[in-house]
Amino acid sequence: MTRTIVASATREVIIGFDQPFCVIGERINPTGRKKLAAEMIEGNFDTVIRDALEQVAAGATMLDVNAGVTSVNPNETEPGLLVKTLEIVQGLVDVPLSIDSSVTAAIEAALKVAKGRPLVNSVTGEEEKLEAILPLCAKYDVPVVAISNDETGISMDPDVRFAVAKKIVERAMDHGIKPHDIVVDPLVMPIGALGDAGRQVFQLLYRLRNELKVNTTCGLSNISFGLPHRHGINAGFIPMVIGAGMTSAIMNPCRPQEMEAVRAANVLNGTDPNCGTWIMTYRDHKPADAGATPSTTPPGASSGRRGGRAARAGAGAATE
Amino acid sequence: MTRTIVASATREVIIGFDQPFCVIGERINPTGRKKLAAEMIEGNFDTVIRDALEQVAAGATMLDVNAGVTSVNPNETEPGLLVKTLEIVQGLVDVPLSIDSSVTAAIEAALKVAKGRPLVNSVTGEEEKLEAILPLCAKYDVPVVAISNDETGISMDPDVRFAVAKKIVERAMDHGIKPHDIVVDPLVMPIGALGDAGRQVFQLLYRLRNELKVNTTCGLSNISFGLPHRHGINAGFIPMVIGAGMTSAIMNPCRPQEMEAVRAANVLNGTDPNCGTWIMTYRDHKPADAGATPSTTPPGASSGRRGGRAARAGAGAATE
Repeated sequence: MTRTIVASATREVIIGFDQPFCVIGERINPTGRKKLAAEMIEGNFDTVIRDALEQVAAGATMLDVNAGVTSVNPNETEPGLLVKTLEIVQGLVDVPLSIDSSVTAAIEAALKVAKGRPLVNSVTGEEEKLEAILPLCAKYDVPVVAISNDETGISMDPDVRFAVAKKIVERAMDHGIKPHDIVVDPLVMPIGALGDAGRQVFQLLYRLRNELKVNTTCGLSNISFGLPHRHGINAGFIPMVIGAGMTSAIMNPCRPQEMEAVRAANVLNGTDPNCGTWIMTYRDHKPADAGATPSTTPPGASSGRRGGRAARAGAGAATE
Repeated sequence: MTRTIVASATREVIIGFDQPFCVIGERINPTGRKKLAAEMIEGNFDTVIRDALEQVAAGATMLDVNAGVTSVNPNETEPGLLVKTLEIVQGLVDVPLSIDSSVTAAIEAALKVAKGRPLVNSVTGEEEKLEAILPLCAKYDVPVVAISNDETGISMDPDVRFAVAKKIVERAMDHGIKPHDIVVDPLVMPIGALGDAGRQVFQLLYRLRNELKVNTTCGLSNISFGLPHRHGINAGFIPMVIGAGMTSAIMNPCRPQEMEAVRAANVLNGTDPNCGTWIMTYRDHKPADAGATPSTTPPGASSGRRGGRAARAGAGAATE
């Protein structure tokens, strides 16, 4: 059984096929957030602190930490800022962290101060990346996100993306990194632009799980880019990728609809024993909260355990 | 490609792997609805009429019609009442219908008056049922729901349930009924009672689709029986069964959360071309409708088509 172990100073988390879906909170990331970038450059970490606390309160399993405030001279500014951000976050919350940077020096600087066993985010199939990141992961004995693109970009052919992932796993093994420490991102395209984007990912996940036997992740909300009511698409996508074998995602845990989909899929995937988390979270839930019409059926109106027509009739009665 | 064709007098619907998920509205069913049963016995079809119109307006692809008002002498009362109910419904709406009864005489009476090509609901693996229902389906050239239980009840072993489904398909072929006219119900158990219920169904769906190559259905809300916030579990289950290959379900289309899950899964499964139905349904959707915190990101804030870190950053920005 594939198990990727990540840890903070005090808490260990396992990413695996038999584990609850690992929600990696995406919000501590100034890319595309001009206000946050400006704050971080000024040394103001108020938003970082709020985002860290809110995401953990909302149920994040891990937090991604990115300090890419600028594309101008990132090699000079990003290592120090990433270290600062990481230290603030790891002093504040006890979930494991993901060190997210495209600057190798920033990743190494962060690895030097990180407590526990962080996840490195990320390496790609590009030669330069492989040679820069894999030795670091080996040196610090940490797992890494492997994004399935290379010098040629992102292939629209899922077989090519699988081959890139396979290459990264093999190259990692050359560095002494085990496949269970590679978390492959098969790359999620927007379904509004590429109608096949969903099925591509499902097929890739199946192969990644059954052939490469690796854990997987993705930038989840990319799937709904450009569509109205994105949270509805995201909330449908989550159970589908979990059913197809995905074991983590970089996403916004502060979205109730998406987190509800994660919790439901954990129940259905058998990773919420005795539905414990579901029941604790929703035992006082009012049907109207979800925008549904009020239920008038008393609890237990149907037995739900009979076969044939009666079984379905029971289901019918339960939704009156 | 497996295609089950059902039709009303004026509209044909295909159930198939490459088709939008077929939502069979479950509400016209007095089982467990005492008030409805009392009305139907009195000859009052106001609720039936309302349920028919509301379900079609909510997006039902088909409607199930059940008139099982009593377990006392159903052989005498049900045929006439089912015919009456069916005639009212087919005079009112143009979606195909499912003739739902455990009384063979009622099914035959309904088949005599049904327009188009209804679905018969249902046969099981029980010898008596097979001999009663399959000749009727052959005679009237109609498809049938095959429930995977037999004289021994519902097996907890998915392999046994698969074997029962296979037996029904083979017996149907003896009667000249093609596998594409068998819609197998693998039987959904409540996840609260059986933690493996979800994975059992996903595995069964995979085999039913790839080995038997049949369409499938289920009494969907049975999965959430006994749990709080059932609609959340149902809405997570729908994308998972669709991803696993299920092509229809008997469910309540008047539940917005469940129907949103169906529409999202159709988008992601590639059966909502150009996201047309999604965009038409949700183009004016306000984020707050789903209970999410308000979005402050302007549309198009991220490109969503870049690879590597930027791709995920784009996703992040889009959910700010």
